[in-house]
Amino acid sequence: MTSQYRVNYHLRAHKRDTLIEFIKGMLLTPFVLHAQPQPLSESEQQAKHVHLNLHRHYTEEAQEANTQRYAEIFSNIEDLISEHREFQHQGIGGYSRLARLVPSIGTFFTHLPLQQAFRRVDQRDRISRRKHVPPSFNDVRRILNIAQVMAIAPDLQLVTFDGDMTLYADGQNFEQDNELTHLLISLLRRRICVAIVTAAGYGSDAPRYEHRLSGLLKGFAQERLTPEEVGQFYVLGGECNFLFRCNPAYRLDYVEDSQYPSSLRSWTDPQVQQLLDVAERELADCVRRMSLNAEILRKPRAVGLVPQAQQQLTREQLDECALSSQFALLKFQGSPKAQPGDVPIPFCAFNGGNDCWVDIGNKLIGVRILQNMLGAGPQSTLHVGDQFLSTGNDISTRTACCTCWIINPQETQSMLNELELVLSARED
Amino acid sequence: MTSQYRVNYHLRAHKRDTLIEFIKGMLLTPFVLHAQPQPLSESEQQAKHVHLNLHRHYTEEAQEANTQRYAEIFSNIEDLISEHREFQHQGIGGYSRLARLVPSIGTFFTHLPLQQAFRRVDQRDRISRRKHVPPSFNDVRRILNIAQVMAIAPDLQLVTFDGDMTLYADGQNFEQDNELTHLLISLLRRRICVAIVTAAGYGSDAPRYEHRLSGLLKGFAQERLTPEEVGQFYVLGGECNFLFRCNPAYRLDYVEDSQYPSSLRSWTDPQVQQLLDVAERELADCVRRMSLNAEILRKPRAVGLVPQAQQQLTREQLDECALSSQFALLKFQGSPKAQPGDVPIPFCAFNGGNDCWVDIGNKLIGVRILQNMLGAGPQSTLHVGDQFLSTGNDISTRTACCTCWIINPQETQSMLNELELVLSARED
Amino acid sequence: MTSQYRVNYHLRAHKRDTLIEFIKGMLLTPFVLHAQPQPLSESEQQAKHVHLNLHRHYTEEAQEANTQRYAEIFSNIEDLISEHREFQHQGIGGYSRLARLVPSIGTFFTHLPLQQAFRRVDQRDRISRRKHVPPSFNDVRRILNIAQVMAIAPDLQLVTFDGDMTLYADGQNFEQDNELTHLLISLLRRRICVAIVTAAGYGSDAPRYEHRLSGLLKGFAQERLTPEEVGQFYVLGGECNFLFRCNPAYRLDYVEDSQYPSSLRSWTDPQVQQLLDVAERELADCVRRMSLNAEILRKPRAVGLVPQAQQQLTREQLDECALSSQFALLKFQGSPKAQPGDVPIPFCAFNGGNDCWVDIGNKLIGVRILQNMLGAGPQSTLHVGDQFLSTGNDISTRTACCTCWIINPQETQSMLNELELVLSARED
Amino acid sequence: MTSQYRVNYHLRAHKRDTLIEFIKGMLLTPFVLHAQPQPLSESEQQAKHVHLNLHRHYTEEAQEANTQRYAEIFSNIEDLISEHREFQHQGIGGYSRLARLVPSIGTFFTHLPLQQAFRRVDQRDRISRRKHVPPSFNDVRRILNIAQVMAIAPDLQLVTFDGDMTLYADGQNFEQDNELTHLLISLLRRRICVAIVTAAGYGSDAPRYEHRLSGLLKGFAQERLTPEEVGQFYVLGGECNFLFRCNPAYRLDYVEDSQYPSSLRSWTDPQVQQLLDVAERELADCVRRMSLNAEILRKPRAVGLVPQAQQQLTREQLDECALSSQFALLKFQGSPKAQPGDVPIPFCAFNGGNDCWVDIGNKLIGVRILQNMLGAGPQSTLHVGDQFLSTGNDISTRTACCTCWIINPQETQSMLNELELVLSARED
Repeated sequence: MTSQYRVNYHLRAHKRDTLIEFIKGMLLTPFVLHAQPQPLSESEQQAKHVHLNLHRHYTEEAQEANTQRYAEIFSNIEDLISEHREFQHQGIGGYSRLARLVPSIGTFFTHLPLQQAFRRVDQRDRISRRKHVPPSFNDVRRILNIAQVMAIAPDLQLVTFDGDMTLYADGQNFEQDNELTHLLISLLRRRICVAIVTAAGYGSDAPRYEHRLSGLLKGFAQERLTPEEVGQFYVLGGECNFLFRCNPAYRLDYVEDSQYPSSLRSWTDPQVQQLLDVAERELADCVRRMSLNAEILRKPRAVGLVPQAQQQLTREQLDECALSSQFALLKFQGSPKAQPGDVPIPFCAFNGGNDCWVDIGNKLIGVRILQNMLGAGPQSTLHVGDQFLSTGNDISTRTACCTCWIINPQETQSMLNELELVLSARED
Repeated sequence: MTSQYRVNYHLRAHKRDTLIEFIKGMLLTPFVLHAQPQPLSESEQQAKHVHLNLHRHYTEEAQEANTQRYAEIFSNIEDLISEHREFQHQGIGGYSRLARLVPSIGTFFTHLPLQQAFRRVDQRDRISRRKHVPPSFNDVRRILNIAQVMAIAPDLQLVTFDGDMTLYADGQNFEQDNELTHLLISLLRRRICVAIVTAAGYGSDAPRYEHRLSGLLKGFAQERLTPEEVGQFYVLGGECNFLFRCNPAYRLDYVEDSQYPSSLRSWTDPQVQQLLDVAERELADCVRRMSLNAEILRKPRAVGLVPQAQQQLTREQLDECALSSQFALLKFQGSPKAQPGDVPIPFCAFNGGNDCWVDIGNKLIGVRILQNMLGAGPQSTLHVGDQFLSTGNDISTRTACCTCWIINPQETQSMLNELELVLSARED
Repeated sequence: MTSQYRVNYHLRAHKRDTLIEFIKGMLLTPFVLHAQPQPLSESEQQAKHVHLNLHRHYTEEAQEANTQRYAEIFSNIEDLISEHREFQHQGIGGYSRLARLVPSIGTFFTHLPLQQAFRRVDQRDRISRRKHVPPSFNDVRRILNIAQVMAIAPDLQLVTFDGDMTLYADGQNFEQDNELTHLLISLLRRRICVAIVTAAGYGSDAPRYEHRLSGLLKGFAQERLTPEEVGQFYVLGGECNFLFRCNPAYRLDYVEDSQYPSSLRSWTDPQVQQLLDVAERELADCVRRMSLNAEILRKPRAVGLVPQAQQQLTREQLDECALSSQFALLKFQGSPKAQPGDVPIPFCAFNGGNDCWVDIGNKLIGVRILQNMLGAGPQSTLHVGDQFLSTGNDISTRTACCTCWIINPQETQSMLNELELVLSARED
Repeated sequence: MTSQYRVNYHLRAHKRDTLIEFIKGMLLTPFVLHAQPQPLSESEQQAKHVHLNLHRHYTEEAQEANTQRYAEIFSNIEDLISEHREFQHQGIGGYSRLARLVPSIGTFFTHLPLQQAFRRVDQRDRISRRKHVPPSFNDVRRILNIAQVMAIAPDLQLVTFDGDMTLYADGQNFEQDNELTHLLISLLRRRICVAIVTAAGYGSDAPRYEHRLSGLLKGFAQERLTPEEVGQFYVLGGECNFLFRCNPAYRLDYVEDSQYPSSLRSWTDPQVQQLLDVAERELADCVRRMSLNAEILRKPRAVGLVPQAQQQLTREQLDECALSSQFALLKFQGSPKAQPGDVPIPFCAFNGGNDCWVDIGNKLIGVRILQNMLGAGPQSTLHVGDQFLSTGNDISTRTACCTCWIINPQETQSMLNELELVLSARED
């Protein structure tokens, strides 16, 4: 049946992350062999008039041994990643053992201290103490995040954030009581640049972006950030299309294309419109095909499918729209098996939660523009977002920089606290 | 590797529903063979200077043929269920083909018109028109719900509802603007009994329940429901322990045990306390084992693990607590492989979203008490809830009545609208 | 898709062994993490002008560490089995961790020194040195065999052997040059009883059995075995129906039912005929349904489906016949989910390689009869055979004694050599 | 767990064929939904005093409907293959739906009438009548073979055969009573060229090849084949290195390289020796690593690992040797993920059953040389062999011509009979 698994896998690949699934799989052996629940306690044995000679298992010591086994697995995977990185540096990444095991594996811009990160997370969440629930997708994701934070901290120059669901709830604004404010301020004070790289595309209309970020900007004012400090804060709207910079009055200034190296966005308007025509046709076909109660919105550099007022589309419908338009645009550009960032005109077709958008350009371009402007390398840049599935718009950044995959603003906060800890420790 | 799949399956069984997964699997063949995206459109062929002779596929007609294939699969499964029901009536359910394919299959109290339900849902959601996203868990769940509603409508006597996430958001109250109000009133006016069967256990303290349901009770008043009509509205708290009935003044009266057939709750207090002691020890062990920032709350007929203020436990931690205490109580009662409803003293150990509770008694008992009192059979009773995984507290009702598995109040509303439609159609 | 895996698993269960598959799965983690091939040798690095800092891996020491990891897994599984055995002794086998992981797990009559057996096999086959081919079904099967031989040797009283494919090629006779002769003789000289328990059913016709075993009997004569020694050699034909014992003249004597405890075969002839009628109808249905070029042969205590001269049936056809008749006889006896040994009249419906037979009685009964007669307990009896899939006729012995699953006479020889070694070592 | 399935799949890919597994998977839905055994017959219902209303299923008509469903699946797959072929002709094979479902899919040189082939095989083997055993690997393989034979017959110009296991038993000679003789003669009489393309490499030593094929050559003589007819019979030894042609005296003549277009074998001796050095080192490492009781044999254009007299290596050991040397030679030639035919110097590292060989050149080259010489295109050439797994030496021919995957000489015979039928039918 193995090939059928591949078919299933292929059909559901838009809901999976191969590295995380690989790590989960490796952890099953110690979970199964060691973490199963103690069948009968001593008092229960008495009640049943049986006597089992099991005292060697299940002690505190046994639990520590289990933790040790999980740690070893993480250490082994850490080795695989290190080897893979060394191979990549030499230009022969495809030869690594990890590449053989997880063929779609990407680039790691830093070492990942997975064992140390596991121990840190396990100290808090006690993953290895669970007897019924094996290490989950979210457990592994969080461990990868912590490892990334630990590794990048010493060289960190630029942190880019997705907006919705990363800094604030979906469709909401950055409110003044947002606990993330002081954490972002702390980064700016450490001379680390901060940018919000968002799909939200309002052209050069600074006030609309200011409105959505008003809580944060007020925070900057309250804390009286210096011009230098706020000058390190950027907003990049429409994935990579509209750049703003914070000025000493705590307002956003639109930065003209000519004022920064925007050559990565080398497409012409006719090209853009031709591509958007293809996308629009495909989205219209989705509306017709699935009788969606939705309309098509055309913007200068994007086209979207948005449900009629009060309507909600299902995740399945939106994924279908995103995958359909991805496929159509890749076909149109001649590479049906490529990634959306590998084609002549990069784009991003993504499920936005309750709508679907096709943007010209993507966050990969966005992050690269910022990196070029600020002189930050991939190993000094961290992108934080919640959309790392293939129908999301954060995944493209993986080619350009280190990433943290969070699932809500609380996790962003927890991840920034961790970063703060590591940075402080270094200063002592 | 097949046995390893069983191990994986077993380890993650608390996150799966076997019938739904089975149906999903059966639908993959038509999805794969028929629904794959059209590789190249005509205009694209021109652009590439190729000419493909593919006009026979992909027409409207082809899409209808695909819908037809999905419908056939549902029709086949409908047949399997009918056969299984006939066998069960004869007391040889284990011999059915469905029982061989899905060994853990339960009881169906009505016929399920799956094909008709599929066509109804497909007309709305166009599942069969998707080319990239195969039929999902939620698609199949919704089809099963509609089929159940269609089948039970003619004989419906009693609808029981879970509270949180079914009628209102988690931990919230039933607000006056809740769109469900008029739908519940409509049921009462049709002489269909309505009961809320909830884990919330406030003893005989009617005002606390009235507070949580104030919006609904006010709705009753506004619509001037007759004493007869409101007298058909019940609340059963603590899963099955505290019964209330609505009085003509639109208030809840506590109903003493002596006033209704409560023999199903035949446990004695010492038995209850002994069981709660076991559960408490296990939950305390979870706290210690996983260093949870949580406290244990003991109530007369329940014991809970509740996080400290502001803390949040992960789903994994709460599932571990629920499964650990389930396992401990089943062991204590001597049947480690049984279901929580099949032991001398039924109980319910469940993940409550942000806490974990072990209740003595469960909704199976709750529904049965109401059925006995109101003379409603399993085939005339419908339970609507959101917790049908093995760590949820609605799943036990499956043994007693028909069920609808919804995931939020909007789905409850949509399901009741559907019911309304069927009931109205019958009246014409 | 998990449930679909169960369906697949269920559909192909007749080709699997759950414990072996479980062990294989557990070994994958060390295989994947440690045994992957060294990507580039030093000379190849030079050729490519790259320099990888990988000397820490891949040394002899690293290979020994890998062996150590495999050994640990086997040690862990050994612990699981020991725990399971302790639970079974106490009558609560269903509570064990192993029973939770491999629900269909059976009974272990001895401890199994898996780690030691692994090291023994690994020393010969170097399983842990493979970098491309993970531990296979056959690797694990051989390790289980060696562990069983090691464990049972000190108490061994009775070894029973299947005939075809175990002692000689399918349909062939035991030839005089068979290298197994001296190994069987050695067992008899050590006062260990030896029996051939075979499906071949020629009634009380001793010469036909003598003909098939002539090489062995001549070997007895040549080696001038004493009457006492040859008196420990038995043949049980028709699975459990016709008993023969070797006499001092090296010939087989038929033993009348009255001369030994045959109460386990307590069925009456009318019962047998009724059951064979059911089996015959089912086999006839198979012939008609699949248009098989085969005929039905009815014997006193068996019915078979045998291809016409020169014809060959496929494995799939024969499995279908075996499973169909199994299912029919279990249904007829009222337990469609039972095992063929758990019904009022035990039977054996098996794929015989190029035919399919339904025998009344089975080797479980056969082994038990010999055990009763010779006073050998399950932990002192070893059955050696090649048919341990659910369509085979050796599998039923697992309930009665220890077993070795071999796949050809060479493996029987190798397993007996191993036994010889252990027995000799004990004598020193 | 999906990624783990990929890992498993990857680790065992050398034992799988992706297209066959895909087809098997697609057939499971009708098997599961329609072919399950009838739970209770009428007489059994009487015995149990139950009455089931099931007469609509299980009739002859129902069985025909099941056959129809299997046929539809094959028809659908036939369509997928046709579409894929059309795309390949246009140079955009990667866009096809089949390429998306089975990414490793190869080239189809003819249409494949799968539905017709299924009906033909099903008429004989009644695959669709089985209720317990789903369509198997071998069922699908046989259907693909028949479809290939049906499709290629009208244009057939050249049939190439593997030797061992295809025309005669492993290591044996072509005996005079071989039933294949008259079938091969019939091909020659129809002016279809026949070649044996074998790994056996005896240089230009014609008598040794004559010895192995003596039965066939005698058959030619007995049937008094004309010089023209026998002149169409070739032997190509060492995969592609040594060419022989049958002369009118029914003997084999060695054909010098200069006498035929051998430019495909463009490697120089130093290159060959360098490659064989790498292979020899790797095989020696296998011997040391796995302590194999084997020796390394070096030939002019091959190096082999051969067990010591009387020893046998396990399949796992030989697969490890084949995969290790494949990997080493691909690495050495710079493409660790390529196929053995895609590198500068093609080679073939294969598990020979009881030995492992690395040959310079492979059957892909062999078949192409013959095609060039005889003017036969891929769609007119058929290669018949038994080694189509990735550790086999027939698989490379798939790039050059149509293929039939048989598993023993009986299947070769049956496949040639089928070919004979189709050819005869065309002549009428």
